[in-house]
Amino acid sequence: MRNKLRLLTPGPTPLPEEVRLALAQDMVHHRKPGFKAVLHRVQEGLQWLFQTTQPVLPLACSGSGAMNAAVWNLFQPGERVLVVEAGKFGQRWTQIAAARGLETTVITLPWGQAVSPARVDEALQADPAIRGVLIQASETSTGVLHPVREIAALTRTRETLLVADGISAVGVSPCPMDEWGVDCLLTGSQKGLMLPPGLAFVALSPRAWTAVEGHPSPKACPVTYFDLRRERDNCLKDQTLYTPAINLLNGLDVSLRLFRERGLEDIFRKQWALTRMTRTAVHALGLEPLVQRAYTWGLTSILMPAGLDGQRLLQIAADRYGVVMAGGQDHLKGRIVRLGHMGHVDFADILAGLYALRQALADCGGHSGSRDYLERGLAAYEQALCVPDVYAAQLHQF
Amino acid sequence: MRNKLRLLTPGPTPLPEEVRLALAQDMVHHRKPGFKAVLHRVQEGLQWLFQTTQPVLPLACSGSGAMNAAVWNLFQPGERVLVVEAGKFGQRWTQIAAARGLETTVITLPWGQAVSPARVDEALQADPAIRGVLIQASETSTGVLHPVREIAALTRTRETLLVADGISAVGVSPCPMDEWGVDCLLTGSQKGLMLPPGLAFVALSPRAWTAVEGHPSPKACPVTYFDLRRERDNCLKDQTLYTPAINLLNGLDVSLRLFRERGLEDIFRKQWALTRMTRTAVHALGLEPLVQRAYTWGLTSILMPAGLDGQRLLQIAADRYGVVMAGGQDHLKGRIVRLGHMGHVDFADILAGLYALRQALADCGGHSGSRDYLERGLAAYEQALCVPDVYAAQLHQF
Repeated sequence: MRNKLRLLTPGPTPLPEEVRLALAQDMVHHRKPGFKAVLHRVQEGLQWLFQTTQPVLPLACSGSGAMNAAVWNLFQPGERVLVVEAGKFGQRWTQIAAARGLETTVITLPWGQAVSPARVDEALQADPAIRGVLIQASETSTGVLHPVREIAALTRTRETLLVADGISAVGVSPCPMDEWGVDCLLTGSQKGLMLPPGLAFVALSPRAWTAVEGHPSPKACPVTYFDLRRERDNCLKDQTLYTPAINLLNGLDVSLRLFRERGLEDIFRKQWALTRMTRTAVHALGLEPLVQRAYTWGLTSILMPAGLDGQRLLQIAADRYGVVMAGGQDHLKGRIVRLGHMGHVDFADILAGLYALRQALADCGGHSGSRDYLERGLAAYEQALCVPDVYAAQLHQF
Repeated sequence: MRNKLRLLTPGPTPLPEEVRLALAQDMVHHRKPGFKAVLHRVQEGLQWLFQTTQPVLPLACSGSGAMNAAVWNLFQPGERVLVVEAGKFGQRWTQIAAARGLETTVITLPWGQAVSPARVDEALQADPAIRGVLIQASETSTGVLHPVREIAALTRTRETLLVADGISAVGVSPCPMDEWGVDCLLTGSQKGLMLPPGLAFVALSPRAWTAVEGHPSPKACPVTYFDLRRERDNCLKDQTLYTPAINLLNGLDVSLRLFRERGLEDIFRKQWALTRMTRTAVHALGLEPLVQRAYTWGLTSILMPAGLDGQRLLQIAADRYGVVMAGGQDHLKGRIVRLGHMGHVDFADILAGLYALRQALADCGGHSGSRDYLERGLAAYEQALCVPDVYAAQLHQF
């Protein structure tokens, strides 16, 4: 193949060489001191990453497993939750809540829109029985960033737990759990963390733990595999309840070290800059991003021109230009292309991605836009890198 | 360190170089044709390994997750199951069944004993309402092999599903699912399969699927992460319901290839020979195995002489001789040492293990037995390798 293969999907994301070597280490036994030291380091790193003093529990499952674990531990059948449903993963909250026997109030939004804090406030005021809000910090199916900080300001003064799916947000854009007052933050390994899928992480606030402990049943969670209380008790002893995914945790140990060497501020800054670069170049190509404002920093969803089949474009981008991107889900299939730019991805990868996008667009008979799309993208990238306060850059989106 | 480090625990087990390189491959996206081809090959290999025509569902979880998945999908609250509890993992069945709201009848046995088919028959005759039997094919906490074939002969003529935890049995000793009439067979990745933990596999018989389909509730399993019906529907399309553990499946693709190149008969023969070697040498050292008859082929539990602390012996074996073995669990902690000999382990590894065992025993002030323990062990190994019918060797244990 003439071009290198480049994985620019919104998860899984490429792996750094250091992580790949760590993944290839031979097995050790997980109840021995050597691995306990790994779990101990990893725990410190995860707390740093989540910006919390609470334990961050590593589970051997995908992100959906962690979503199940959160709902099954935090809520009892018959309790009411408010779900923000603005994409595929919002819908998943509703499905899991229903499976748990919860009553759900759903705020449904067009795919591509973020919820407004006012709408959540209204729903909470209308029904004081709502025990939890289930939301995506970043909705991976569309690329929307929901205003978690603003919603936390509403829930923290009520007896309502805020559960945020941070699968494509943690390590990608700011989400300081303790400072904002998020009650449950979870993520998966295959997005910002530069690891294969197979691990997920869940942290609970002190009042969320109180809710788990206060459940009338002897077991907070009847699903013994997702018993967060027992996972926490093990975590405090540098253990896991069940056999952990050892090689992924070895990889995590390295990826967290790489994160800490760089610092969160620098990582967020790069993500912000890649997002601005992509969006600017997309506009220059005469295309429109699906999300107009409040966009996530790990992927960009690009609307296909009328009559152009996004699935065919994806195929051509991969076959001819070596760039693997993702399509839309459900009713957006064929209508959007999702270009992932989180984790172990840099500006040059995005240049390749944008080039493949433009060429494949032309190969499909589409309009190819301005020729200086890469230059414009790079200018936006450099400018965004120099933003004085990257945290403020996020808040200005809402 | 003078000695190489050798992992001889009963899981996780060492990884072949080919598998480690596969694990270190960079990420691909799991909904693209290339990975579908991996899932397709892996499925063929798993069916061959389980000796079944039914789909073998790969799940991103540990073996305990698969145990949860089996119980939650196959049974409804209020149904009665019979649990064979002869060790830590038998107890786990009871815990999961209770969490699912099942009525349980428990056959409790001293740790180290296998259940007799007559005792199971008696329990089934006494209570025709029993809908399932939950058992370990191999009880990893002790090294006992339960008579799954004989118990299947009892359940297959009744409306009772036989659910066998094959975590340290599949790929280690014969357990042909369809031929024996096992209704649910499951295993994990980190034992016979020469992979890191993080994957588990579940297969159901046609009548077990009928049970899942026939449940009155719209969802067979309220835990959406462990919905086997939807996993099967995806599996038939070379997909998984949720994001799969990609690098582990890449590793599995290679480990299954290695398995098929050798053939099941040859693998079982080696396992049988390593077991005979270990037991013979243990006897020559003046020690007793915990399990007198009906022993598993993947590990040997060795009773410590009175007054000798097994935990201390383990520490010395690791620190001075580079051999990492496991201790006992719960009341057997300190009282047994478990030497694992499954997966990517050969006679020379076991020689090192036996040597470390003898030296550490002497360092702890124990009796060191016959000096020709290795020769005796090797003679037993060679003899066992030449057994005319390795399948018969297993059946003769009961």
